[in-house]
Amino acid sequence: MIQMTLIQIDNYGPWTVTPKPRTESDLQILQAELFADVQRMVAAKKGLVFFTRFDNMLAITNGLDKEDHLRIQRSIRNRYPITISMGVGAAETPHEAQKLATIALQNAGGAQDGERKEILAIDSLIENPEDSFVQAAHIDINSVTETLTDIESAFDTSFIVNKAQHYLMTKLRKKGALLFFIGGDNFMSPCNGLSEDEIKEILIEIKEEIDIGFKAGIGRADNAEDAAYMADIGLEIIRDANNSKWIEIVEEL
Amino acid sequence: MIQMTLIQIDNYGPWTVTPKPRTESDLQILQAELFADVQRMVAAKKGLVFFTRFDNMLAITNGLDKEDHLRIQRSIRNRYPITISMGVGAAETPHEAQKLATIALQNAGGAQDGERKEILAIDSLIENPEDSFVQAAHIDINSVTETLTDIESAFDTSFIVNKAQHYLMTKLRKKGALLFFIGGDNFMSPCNGLSEDEIKEILIEIKEEIDIGFKAGIGRADNAEDAAYMADIGLEIIRDANNSKWIEIVEEL
Amino acid sequence: MIQMTLIQIDNYGPWTVTPKPRTESDLQILQAELFADVQRMVAAKKGLVFFTRFDNMLAITNGLDKEDHLRIQRSIRNRYPITISMGVGAAETPHEAQKLATIALQNAGGAQDGERKEILAIDSLIENPEDSFVQAAHIDINSVTETLTDIESAFDTSFIVNKAQHYLMTKLRKKGALLFFIGGDNFMSPCNGLSEDEIKEILIEIKEEIDIGFKAGIGRADNAEDAAYMADIGLEIIRDANNSKWIEIVEEL
Amino acid sequence: MIQMTLIQIDNYGPWTVTPKPRTESDLQILQAELFADVQRMVAAKKGLVFFTRFDNMLAITNGLDKEDHLRIQRSIRNRYPITISMGVGAAETPHEAQKLATIALQNAGGAQDGERKEILAIDSLIENPEDSFVQAAHIDINSVTETLTDIESAFDTSFIVNKAQHYLMTKLRKKGALLFFIGGDNFMSPCNGLSEDEIKEILIEIKEEIDIGFKAGIGRADNAEDAAYMADIGLEIIRDANNSKWIEIVEEL
Repeated sequence: MIQMTLIQIDNYGPWTVTPKPRTESDLQILQAELFADVQRMVAAKKGLVFFTRFDNMLAITNGLDKEDHLRIQRSIRNRYPITISMGVGAAETPHEAQKLATIALQNAGGAQDGERKEILAIDSLIENPEDSFVQAAHIDINSVTETLTDIESAFDTSFIVNKAQHYLMTKLRKKGALLFFIGGDNFMSPCNGLSEDEIKEILIEIKEEIDIGFKAGIGRADNAEDAAYMADIGLEIIRDANNSKWIEIVEEL
Repeated sequence: MIQMTLIQIDNYGPWTVTPKPRTESDLQILQAELFADVQRMVAAKKGLVFFTRFDNMLAITNGLDKEDHLRIQRSIRNRYPITISMGVGAAETPHEAQKLATIALQNAGGAQDGERKEILAIDSLIENPEDSFVQAAHIDINSVTETLTDIESAFDTSFIVNKAQHYLMTKLRKKGALLFFIGGDNFMSPCNGLSEDEIKEILIEIKEEIDIGFKAGIGRADNAEDAAYMADIGLEIIRDANNSKWIEIVEEL
Repeated sequence: MIQMTLIQIDNYGPWTVTPKPRTESDLQILQAELFADVQRMVAAKKGLVFFTRFDNMLAITNGLDKEDHLRIQRSIRNRYPITISMGVGAAETPHEAQKLATIALQNAGGAQDGERKEILAIDSLIENPEDSFVQAAHIDINSVTETLTDIESAFDTSFIVNKAQHYLMTKLRKKGALLFFIGGDNFMSPCNGLSEDEIKEILIEIKEEIDIGFKAGIGRADNAEDAAYMADIGLEIIRDANNSKWIEIVEEL
Repeated sequence: MIQMTLIQIDNYGPWTVTPKPRTESDLQILQAELFADVQRMVAAKKGLVFFTRFDNMLAITNGLDKEDHLRIQRSIRNRYPITISMGVGAAETPHEAQKLATIALQNAGGAQDGERKEILAIDSLIENPEDSFVQAAHIDINSVTETLTDIESAFDTSFIVNKAQHYLMTKLRKKGALLFFIGGDNFMSPCNGLSEDEIKEILIEIKEEIDIGFKAGIGRADNAEDAAYMADIGLEIIRDANNSKWIEIVEEL
């Protein structure tokens, strides 16, 4: 099972314009620092956070219990002008897990409900460590430096990367998987339950549809950190083989 | 004229996997901190940075001269395990400006050229303060909390926001404008040269195509900070009118 | 037993002036960020770091094992231009613990030995959780705002606080305790083995010698975080009694 | 003239224990981040901040005007759970300048006055750039690595460094100069008005009194950044001469 946590800034939208619009650069710094800080705390227990929409972040939190979540909320409250609420869910697929997490939090009040503050809404936690399982695919675009970064304008490259993201999100979501942009030409897909063939097929389809070639290293472990690391090793194996494969699964080191 | 700077981490891809893949959470923290730090330094002169792809960031840098850019490179070199190169361009449209900035840097060496390090490649700078002009549109999705955040799962909301981004990017890019996601349901479009009608038309088209309703505050000033602030004021005016308008331009306070 | 870790930047002095002196503000930011980051990682396991000399930091690390230390080193290596070495020691008194930690690291090479890098030199770790014990005194100056901050110049106040630190360090060190400045008019003394009377006597002596009045909350727990928290509660109890007591011990909540 | 700014967290003491004592590690991170952030913003204009007591920081702010100060306050308000007030003073000596800054702020309300918030109390600013002058001495302990760091325990070394600080503060303060610890075995003394002989004499006296040998590079410029850099160059010159001199003045590069 995979456990996912939704981290949501309480009543953030209204705060950003009260009493008048806050300086955009300050908000950008605040959001980036908050993401980095939550990442540090989740990573201390081998979880992994995705910036998602910044005011709403999704994290793989296998290995984090209730107290771990409460400590993160406390530390943010002590150091930021805002507070965060969280929802937690565990399920067989990442999409189902984050859905349970979202519903739990939504049931506790709306994102802009001025009364709701620092809620920790737990739908489910992985109680038995033996049930903990994360499958993560690290997907990147083949030869992006040669074909895009060093040739196209910076914005046009980002446009194509965003286009790739849109296609990946569309197809993976239908299969119960998630997809997050993690910088550069890199994407991470929590994808418990997806078979090698299903992932490969998605990459082949997109290649045919928009002519962007991907490769995917796939890692499996009982926590996000190790799964992501093995996915990286998988990518390295494909690179060493001159991108002659679409995917590579790594399950142990 | 608008001045744009491309900020590129030198030889980043290879560094992330040398001698073996670095822990993903560390890379995510590094990228977020780097963005926040460059933002602080650019914002000190009223510029604005967009995280873009994190290893490649685009910034509106009206008001920053050569020495300002060199100081940013120096400070990053002194505090990070990586260095950054930069390209700078000034033009009538944001797309042209970032293109000139990109070409200047590409001419100095590739992003993964091990020899290229801490290049400052200036195609053009705005020399006369009177030529400095930034038009920025702050675009958000109407009633996103009610229609998405509080109803859909967190990932599905992020999927729809990403879809909105893809459509906005596609249409704005054709007009010489840029589009960056700035968190939540918010986008910022540097759009010098675009008329009110052109922006409104794009929003109407997307509404018809994918049924996502937007509003846009548009600010105009001689620097990014003030333009973004006036764009925020524009958004507030539309909100106060119950989203009954598509756009609102603010040119002075 | 108390476990202490010495965290030392490798070959830092030479680095700060190579190839020429680095900008002082950058070094100050680097040092503060490094302290904050190591603090975050040590605090994730309920330890506590003192900035000490910034390039050499001492931490109470009861609860952190070898892997925890290695993870901190890895994360710093991945995000900073410098690396850190560490020594770890456990003993009955804090002074003895940090001495064992220091000797272990010194034996592995000098602080400016260009060859020594990312050493983790463990003299001893607390193996049995039942042996883990931290006594910490949170000491502050009575009525500092009224008698100093709001009356004296800011530098003169800092001069007196530093003088207080010098006297506290001198006396506590002779008893096997340590003393760290933690901001404002606050000091933290890891002081396993010191009796109530010994601490009280030290405060009385300094009052007589330089006419600075202190109070001390003393906390006892199996980790630094809880001990520090109970020390804070002790301080609150004394404040509620109008500083009519010198010390207050809190052992459980 | 030298311009100094006192940066004071509003009502910080009470905040740290409301509604109950906040976790010490969080406070340490908050203080270090706040210092690093204020440093970044002051350094953008070639000023320099000293952490001082963390809740009260002193900065050399030659080159920063009223708007620069207001922007720092705004950015902190937007990103921290606390706000800062400031006092600013300009005078012939650093001690006088910080005293004027302190008095201006004290007159606006006490540090723990719940009503006082985000005050900017300006006693005086350097209006004419030609009046701007900073003399800064970078003082370090001779051969600290060989005689202390690599031989003594980490705490005992920090004790000796603190003792050195106490002696330096005592003597420099009497001459109208200031003294701040900047990490390692390094101190920075803003010392406008002090002659070479006066500084040298102080170092000789301390050597005789407590047998700690120092050297001092002294820089002179119209801003803190350049003065500090020239002081560093002065130190390098002395090191190259095997510490055979007490002081070295550098006025231009």
